[in-house]
Amino acid sequence: MTIQIPRGTQDILPGQVEAWQWIEEKTRDICQKYQYKEIRTPIFEQTELFQRGVGESTDIVQKEMYTFKDRGDRSLTLRPEGTAPVVRSFVENKLYGQPNQPVKLYYVGPMFRYERPQAGRYRQFVQFGVEALGSQDPAIDAEVIALAMEVYKSLGLKRLKVVINSLGDPTSRKAHREALIQHFKPKINEFCLDCQNRLERNPLRILDCKKDRDHELIKNAPSILTFLNEESTQYFEKVKDYLQLLQIDFEVDATLVRGLDYYNHTAFEIMSEAEGFGAITTLCGGGRYNGLVEQFGGPSAPGIGFALSMERLLAAMKAEGIELPINEHLDCYIVALGEEAKDYSVALLQQLRQAGFSAERDYISRKLKAQFKAAERMQAAYTAILGEDELKAGTITVKKMENGEQTVLSLNNFIEAFTELCK
Amino acid sequence: MTIQIPRGTQDILPGQVEAWQWIEEKTRDICQKYQYKEIRTPIFEQTELFQRGVGESTDIVQKEMYTFKDRGDRSLTLRPEGTAPVVRSFVENKLYGQPNQPVKLYYVGPMFRYERPQAGRYRQFVQFGVEALGSQDPAIDAEVIALAMEVYKSLGLKRLKVVINSLGDPTSRKAHREALIQHFKPKINEFCLDCQNRLERNPLRILDCKKDRDHELIKNAPSILTFLNEESTQYFEKVKDYLQLLQIDFEVDATLVRGLDYYNHTAFEIMSEAEGFGAITTLCGGGRYNGLVEQFGGPSAPGIGFALSMERLLAAMKAEGIELPINEHLDCYIVALGEEAKDYSVALLQQLRQAGFSAERDYISRKLKAQFKAAERMQAAYTAILGEDELKAGTITVKKMENGEQTVLSLNNFIEAFTELCK
Repeated sequence: MTIQIPRGTQDILPGQVEAWQWIEEKTRDICQKYQYKEIRTPIFEQTELFQRGVGESTDIVQKEMYTFKDRGDRSLTLRPEGTAPVVRSFVENKLYGQPNQPVKLYYVGPMFRYERPQAGRYRQFVQFGVEALGSQDPAIDAEVIALAMEVYKSLGLKRLKVVINSLGDPTSRKAHREALIQHFKPKINEFCLDCQNRLERNPLRILDCKKDRDHELIKNAPSILTFLNEESTQYFEKVKDYLQLLQIDFEVDATLVRGLDYYNHTAFEIMSEAEGFGAITTLCGGGRYNGLVEQFGGPSAPGIGFALSMERLLAAMKAEGIELPINEHLDCYIVALGEEAKDYSVALLQQLRQAGFSAERDYISRKLKAQFKAAERMQAAYTAILGEDELKAGTITVKKMENGEQTVLSLNNFIEAFTELCK
Repeated sequence: MTIQIPRGTQDILPGQVEAWQWIEEKTRDICQKYQYKEIRTPIFEQTELFQRGVGESTDIVQKEMYTFKDRGDRSLTLRPEGTAPVVRSFVENKLYGQPNQPVKLYYVGPMFRYERPQAGRYRQFVQFGVEALGSQDPAIDAEVIALAMEVYKSLGLKRLKVVINSLGDPTSRKAHREALIQHFKPKINEFCLDCQNRLERNPLRILDCKKDRDHELIKNAPSILTFLNEESTQYFEKVKDYLQLLQIDFEVDATLVRGLDYYNHTAFEIMSEAEGFGAITTLCGGGRYNGLVEQFGGPSAPGIGFALSMERLLAAMKAEGIELPINEHLDCYIVALGEEAKDYSVALLQQLRQAGFSAERDYISRKLKAQFKAAERMQAAYTAILGEDELKAGTITVKKMENGEQTVLSLNNFIEAFTELCK
């Protein structure tokens, strides 16, 4: 009886995994250039972390978390996102006390949300994200956006759009909040129950509502931008100046908001404008969260970051028809004939590998012709042919697959001669 | 209020993570040379997979699994090991039908077991493992052992011991089983309750018992090796011949067993003999499991593999005093003075990074001296100093930190000149 993979998850098999490896390596290189260092946090955390860090009232916490009790009766949750764990670690390990500030971190790994599986959406998905903690320089807001853009561009994506907004500082947010309440209150009965609940608790999230998004009051709701105080306006202007300096085109969209209180100032998204990409066009979302470290019991340390979905990145690459120059070739396939030669090939294989070559031989008693076929299928650059006669003569015949050129080498100094041949 | 990391798990922080990255890259390179391809399976699987694949009666399944219901009432389990998921995927994705046989796979990722946390033992730990499916050539048994050894040796480990055994084919195992039952039966009451239960169900596991290991009957229990039929003996001889050919020293230990029925022929472990390494000296365990694919509803396809713990590998490296040549240097730190120069440095930074350099600037309004200190702390190879005067003159002063040598470059062709300087 067969057992199937859990619903909403996927195996990444050879043939697919090479693209993931490629993207991850690219991403790591970019993080090195930008001086973001990797952090690895556990797959699960105490449930409370996400209740507080993502927000009790969010869909994620209410409906989508994999929460369970361990054998010690602790409530644990498979991480649905990466920011809360990173900030938890920043506080717990007192990284705010290190001399190198800001602390610039990146992570890449699986996240878990119990959503309805659909095209391109998985219950286990991989996010890459960065967090810069400890700086409130608008230049780092621009840097974080630039880093995300460099990841996409380095992979060949072109149909990208950067959308930014400012949520201002707490004073600006509060003024905007009051205005929103005044704006919606008279007609709040026309909105969904969720929105009615949001009115006093978190009116900003009404702007995000999927059900009511066509309501006229949402379309002409007061813009946060008109409520920014001078400091917040200046901060936003500076971020925009830096983006221009970095030649990153962007649009300002005052409806781009974040519901949770500890978000402030810069919010941004990167979308794909590729044709046929599908309904969800957001590739990457990020923003500044100056209140979160304190919320988790740390000092008052500002933060900014983003997270991007690797699955959606791959989908965007597909939509733009991008093929990565992945080359999974094999340096040498040893074709061996006869028991003795086969045994000898075990040692040769090892020599090749220890000299740094990728090398393979047959392990299922293939006949001569089938061995050559296998070598071709594996895109061997060379085949090395060893029969009883060669073995007696102490030689081996090496064939360059590209042009069929054959060279007879001595078994005594095979590795040296093969290395020479490959040059 | 602070929230802590879950018990038995760890954060891997910058400063520690570089060793992990190094080892993973080494491991990937070795897999490429040996032509093992990566496979990524989900973090959780249907619980039944491990009940069947690891075995209902094992400690892992009985006591150590993180098992929970998802919101659709499915019983899921965080994977406690990697072989069952890989074999599930091999069957589900019909990899046995591919022309490239055997299918040689590797994985690296977190596993989960609810054990008592202790030195070097975590509830979330990382395993690297390989599985070769579809070949019963003894040369591949040797290859798998050689691959594990190359991982350890490439990282500098020297105090290693390879222990091997053969469990024979099903006929040999059955004969041995009968002999074990006859051996233990008369005095089974002297054994623990677990062992009494094992007598008829799985007497081989009595040899593995932690409580009864000093019992005389275990010490002089009949050896599996005396029950190997001719075919099994020949297979084992061939594996040993190949290991000798590959110059891998080994010991044969007839008490090295695997309890589950689908294990047969080769079983092996690699241990650390480093002083002060601790009580658990096994770094890596593996073996042949010709029955498992069929057990999971696939065709009769032989398999062999191993898994090694990354945490224990790191502990062994520490015990042998191995330091990796990790170099986290920074190419250029831009020291900027004055508002205008600071703004300009944002663009310079971007130019450096886009040209492939790792580069950094100050983001917390440090004074001149503190910026230099930051550059030193980050092991900058060069600092580039930009003040108001330089900016007016269109120049920048680059200082080689190693020897203090200063060069004035033009801002117009800074990247070209800096690249030249670095050569």
